[in-house]
Amino acid sequence: MLVDQILEGLAGEALLTRHIKLRDMDAEALIHAKSAHVSIARTVAAMEQADGIVIATPIFKASYSGLLKVFIDLLPQFALSGKAVLPIATGGSVAHLLALDYGLRPVVQSMGARHIVQSLFVPEADMSLADDRLRVGAQTGAMLKEAIYHFKRAVESTTDDRFLGHPRPIRTA
Amino acid sequence: MLVDQILEGLAGEALLTRHIKLRDMDAEALIHAKSAHVSIARTVAAMEQADGIVIATPIFKASYSGLLKVFIDLLPQFALSGKAVLPIATGGSVAHLLALDYGLRPVVQSMGARHIVQSLFVPEADMSLADDRLRVGAQTGAMLKEAIYHFKRAVESTTDDRFLGHPRPIRTA
Amino acid sequence: MLVDQILEGLAGEALLTRHIKLRDMDAEALIHAKSAHVSIARTVAAMEQADGIVIATPIFKASYSGLLKVFIDLLPQFALSGKAVLPIATGGSVAHLLALDYGLRPVVQSMGARHIVQSLFVPEADMSLADDRLRVGAQTGAMLKEAIYHFKRAVESTTDDRFLGHPRPIRTA
Amino acid sequence: MLVDQILEGLAGEALLTRHIKLRDMDAEALIHAKSAHVSIARTVAAMEQADGIVIATPIFKASYSGLLKVFIDLLPQFALSGKAVLPIATGGSVAHLLALDYGLRPVVQSMGARHIVQSLFVPEADMSLADDRLRVGAQTGAMLKEAIYHFKRAVESTTDDRFLGHPRPIRTA
Repeated sequence: MLVDQILEGLAGEALLTRHIKLRDMDAEALIHAKSAHVSIARTVAAMEQADGIVIATPIFKASYSGLLKVFIDLLPQFALSGKAVLPIATGGSVAHLLALDYGLRPVVQSMGARHIVQSLFVPEADMSLADDRLRVGAQTGAMLKEAIYHFKRAVESTTDDRFLGHPRPIRTA
Repeated sequence: MLVDQILEGLAGEALLTRHIKLRDMDAEALIHAKSAHVSIARTVAAMEQADGIVIATPIFKASYSGLLKVFIDLLPQFALSGKAVLPIATGGSVAHLLALDYGLRPVVQSMGARHIVQSLFVPEADMSLADDRLRVGAQTGAMLKEAIYHFKRAVESTTDDRFLGHPRPIRTA
Repeated sequence: MLVDQILEGLAGEALLTRHIKLRDMDAEALIHAKSAHVSIARTVAAMEQADGIVIATPIFKASYSGLLKVFIDLLPQFALSGKAVLPIATGGSVAHLLALDYGLRPVVQSMGARHIVQSLFVPEADMSLADDRLRVGAQTGAMLKEAIYHFKRAVESTTDDRFLGHPRPIRTA
Repeated sequence: MLVDQILEGLAGEALLTRHIKLRDMDAEALIHAKSAHVSIARTVAAMEQADGIVIATPIFKASYSGLLKVFIDLLPQFALSGKAVLPIATGGSVAHLLALDYGLRPVVQSMGARHIVQSLFVPEADMSLADDRLRVGAQTGAMLKEAIYHFKRAVESTTDDRFLGHPRPIRTA
């Protein structure tokens, strides 16, 4: 629901959004890295065309979820090359705030991301349900707005790059 | 095969070893965190009784494998409490040497491990097959011996703790 | 010399550059965090006005230099708020490639940086001197060009933000 | 004061302790890496003879202090080879809990430490002064006791290794 709220904030005339839930993919294909499986292949194709990716994960055991990493392991090495990325996480305790920046960013970086904007950590205690809609605290709300603004700008900048015909970044090792 | 070689080096009068391959577990159970599934529940029970755990993973995208993390996410928060741990990884490039220490250790630490010995990184180029047996280079061989020696000592020390009736470590957050 | 080469690549009609060497600052002031000392205060003031910062460090003991961190510790918590940052490092071995992404980025991130572009790691073996000028290998040269291009674009985007009167990002904890 | 309290807890018939304050070292020698300076050389010599090292640091900007890293940069690459290490930190917010495990451990690991016991993070709010003595909360007190117990055991194990004439670990890169 947090992701849907962000996608709503992002959507506009110039921006199409799509929410892909890793949990709905085929378990066998994920675990045994069958990247040709239709549920995987379609997602990879959709990602290729995207200028920006929002990566959302819960924090378990001081790091991002295994489900996320299983999916990442299936992707081409530079699957995020030239793209804007917004990492967000929810966690039981603010003590896990650094897990995104220390744990997830180096992984995203290694896939050639062009711009990873400030990541967003939302403590579970700061979210509640009212009338089937997610409510967040005032500070989280403001940070959410910030994150959406900066991610939008990063996506635009990425799109400009593409029109300028700038080659994809070079990365080795 | 690298793990089997380490387990051979560890086995002795006082030490029973067992090799659990995450890849053989039920994919559905792993992805949907069905910890009651027999293939999961048995492994968790076996781990509970162990004094030491060797964690082996390839390095993908600058970090440990998603399969490993999916399994870790299924375990109780302090599943490694009071245990000795030896982290080992194989990787295509020595450029990923730091992935174990920066990426995996904090996760293992968060599960209450008592002693994580020096981790071992084996570059793929340093391994070969001869007569169906894994061969490693001289330096890797020496580091392997070192790792086995220290892990054995750490396991013994852990066992002593248990006989001394020392309570399990306290951890919060 | 690597930094000077990058600054040359950056300089142009619209961009003023300046190279600050931490090694020339007052040692007493650095170690005892005397942020009022003139050599510190001037640098902090110069940084405040900058739209982009290139952070260059050698890798020692699997992480950025202590000198860099001593200086960072002197800065206000959000000293990089709204700025573009390009992290670069030199190191004896490609085995330390991940030190920037795992070690330095979370620190830079915690200071509110708006856009940290792909970091650049240059192995010492890839640099040489010819006629008092630094020479780098072909691949490093291409990565350098990439880094300069993306950093320039990030700085421009940051400047636009400022003209749009967008408030500085909000960060807590 | 926190360190002194730990050293008190450690001291006994078989264990000599000594508290070295980095802040008292010569600033010039630290910043310009003059490892021959007497205040540095003496400390390095004392460390060489130690079986265990308690490393204490505040958390600034999501990581260990620059002063600590400046000192570490002065040490030989394997200055902690074969030693037991207890990392402790104080910080303004529990949000920085992971900074020790993600930030400091890889550095300590790279210096060949034999056993880094569970690190200890003490939030500033959990410490107070009463009659010129540091008071900590009940939970921190219990964790402190745990840490001292495990560090003592790790030091003993290290000492045994030395008497067994076991060679120092091999590390490369």
